[in-house]
Amino acid sequence: MKIMKILVINCGSSSLKYQLIESTDGNVLAKGLAERIGINDSMLTHNANGEKIKIKKDMKDHKDAIKLVLDALVNSDYGVIKDMSEIDAVGHRVVHGGESFTSSVLINDEVLKAITDCIELAPLHNPANIEGIKACQQIMPNVPMVAVFDTAFHQTMPDYAYLYPIPYEYYTKYRIRRYGFHGTSHKYVSNRAAEILNKPIEDLKIITCHLGNGSSIAAVKYGKSIDTSMGFTPLEGLAMGTRSGSIDPSIISYLMEKENISAEEVVNILNKKSGVYGISGISSDFRDLEDAAFKNGDERAQLALNVFAYRVKKTIGAYAAAMGGVDVIVFTAGVGENGPEIREFILDGLEFLGFSLDKEKNKVRGKETIISTPNSKVSVMVVPTNEEYMIAKDTEKIVKSIK
Amino acid sequence: MKIMKILVINCGSSSLKYQLIESTDGNVLAKGLAERIGINDSMLTHNANGEKIKIKKDMKDHKDAIKLVLDALVNSDYGVIKDMSEIDAVGHRVVHGGESFTSSVLINDEVLKAITDCIELAPLHNPANIEGIKACQQIMPNVPMVAVFDTAFHQTMPDYAYLYPIPYEYYTKYRIRRYGFHGTSHKYVSNRAAEILNKPIEDLKIITCHLGNGSSIAAVKYGKSIDTSMGFTPLEGLAMGTRSGSIDPSIISYLMEKENISAEEVVNILNKKSGVYGISGISSDFRDLEDAAFKNGDERAQLALNVFAYRVKKTIGAYAAAMGGVDVIVFTAGVGENGPEIREFILDGLEFLGFSLDKEKNKVRGKETIISTPNSKVSVMVVPTNEEYMIAKDTEKIVKSIK
Repeated sequence: MKIMKILVINCGSSSLKYQLIESTDGNVLAKGLAERIGINDSMLTHNANGEKIKIKKDMKDHKDAIKLVLDALVNSDYGVIKDMSEIDAVGHRVVHGGESFTSSVLINDEVLKAITDCIELAPLHNPANIEGIKACQQIMPNVPMVAVFDTAFHQTMPDYAYLYPIPYEYYTKYRIRRYGFHGTSHKYVSNRAAEILNKPIEDLKIITCHLGNGSSIAAVKYGKSIDTSMGFTPLEGLAMGTRSGSIDPSIISYLMEKENISAEEVVNILNKKSGVYGISGISSDFRDLEDAAFKNGDERAQLALNVFAYRVKKTIGAYAAAMGGVDVIVFTAGVGENGPEIREFILDGLEFLGFSLDKEKNKVRGKETIISTPNSKVSVMVVPTNEEYMIAKDTEKIVKSIK
Repeated sequence: MKIMKILVINCGSSSLKYQLIESTDGNVLAKGLAERIGINDSMLTHNANGEKIKIKKDMKDHKDAIKLVLDALVNSDYGVIKDMSEIDAVGHRVVHGGESFTSSVLINDEVLKAITDCIELAPLHNPANIEGIKACQQIMPNVPMVAVFDTAFHQTMPDYAYLYPIPYEYYTKYRIRRYGFHGTSHKYVSNRAAEILNKPIEDLKIITCHLGNGSSIAAVKYGKSIDTSMGFTPLEGLAMGTRSGSIDPSIISYLMEKENISAEEVVNILNKKSGVYGISGISSDFRDLEDAAFKNGDERAQLALNVFAYRVKKTIGAYAAAMGGVDVIVFTAGVGENGPEIREFILDGLEFLGFSLDKEKNKVRGKETIISTPNSKVSVMVVPTNEEYMIAKDTEKIVKSIK
């Protein structure tokens, strides 16, 4: 079987992350980041063969950035392929697929139009994703491209989980419903957890906790997402680095009046000045908060961690209820993979679900590990996420199927 | 021990509900409702001695209403006492006590001022409650009065449960936090459940589901509320008759833009046109929805019931997690007491918590009943709420302690 080389692209409004991945085993040939695209001082950081190369060069748009990435990949000094033609396919991360996409899909004009139709649902993200796709199409017109959506994995939610208790016409007219995000991560770690346990995912009730600067939890029942904590936008659900998650909706109009600011400004505060940063007043970075709380005894840093962990704990309980029990609890992403103290605090009191925490094993950081005791009915695990690999695998599968 | 006669008063902006209760056993001597106070066609409905009397008379304010109530209570035909002096105390339901009141309290000037300070937190309710108190003080200046707060029972919540992940100063400056409501009901049914089970409440983890037109759930651990689903206002939490409960906060600004309406108008829609009414488009009354769903196969009525039940189910799971397990689940209020189908749907899948539902016993409506099987580790119960009795008991206790 031919090993495919797949370029995975993740475009932000002024950035472009990439990895060149060998599909079979996920070997990363090169990866990097183009920053400040369309701004001044734009720069590419390219990692390959154990080296990090910084290339300062003007990039006026994502097309310039893609060109620079391809130049780096084929460069005679620090490149990893001889010729652009070695790239078999490109996998694009796309944030919002609305209700149009329940899985990854080969990009054609119709698909591009549907992604464009979702701009209104993800005004900050989808335009950049489209930019990246169009730039690649221009430079690599004959390379097949696949869109992998953050929302697709959650499209299996039942209606009673995705509909809000608001006038029904807002769903039909404005597509307001729970979509959920981080789908690629939840899909990857739930499947990986089943593999590690050597059990069919079709037999498992898995709760995946993607805890990072942005955090969400999913209830993955028999391989399908049936609920997730992020909603119409990535603001809902858990307390995050700077995002509030769910609050009493009345607080918005109350704050507008008290602070004499617009609804948009309130939502901006809920996105950028809230979460653990808002409570602590110190930082959105959990390492800073742990330092402040554990070393300096900072009470509000401790409070921020408590609020964060408590909401995770409650959501785990809620999803166990949603699935009629739980077999596996998975921690992933920055905090989930690297926060033994926070994991312990989250899990404390959840033993009634059917596990004991192995405190020694829970000291792990960033490595696939079962952290519950061997005789636990429920397996608790750390599984580092790998969205790029998931995108590469989906891309490979789709491209192979059309050949 | 002298039996006290306690007048329990619950004032709305244009209404006044009352019960005259004998404190020891909760015997209700008379009860009634004054409606359309300060509007035209005001009317008093008075129930006593198995009779219902309707008295049409102008009531320009709550003082007029109280006078009419007292007239009815001492009326030679349909009255139940000979003289006003037989009323030993008055218990007032007060919606919002902020952080000032952790339990019921004898009303004096200082207390009245503190209740006034909470108007900003409950602009629709506290003014009417104050009206009622002042009217009673004028007409019965020598009768001791007690304020019983909807929020007081929840003041035992830990900070990590009541603080929102928003900038901390909004708590200190504007008192924005979770308060919770229906406290008198949650307190009553949790205590009653322990009595029925003949176990000390200090040993029990109880989840109380107050499901009516307004709905909330509380986690009552060892007799103390440690979390509840209503928050800063009664809008948060579950899907209700016309209230949305929790939604993605971003939906507010999105709807403002789409519908070209103000934040206030959106919050008004979330309060009055949402919930099961909003989803079904039919009714906020669960009996109507059950008819539509079960008899006519109306899909959106079924969907509304599903959304409602699913959120209750998840919240039960969340509170089991919050308490490290659960011993008792209590259903109360209109839907909780009288909705066997909805109870069954809510409980379906929750058996992993440690109970089996006795489907025969679950057919009960409005009667104290254990509806789980006898060998269940977790007791599931129906306990009709009785907020007026709770108010009378609290009033009795406080008035006796000062004598």
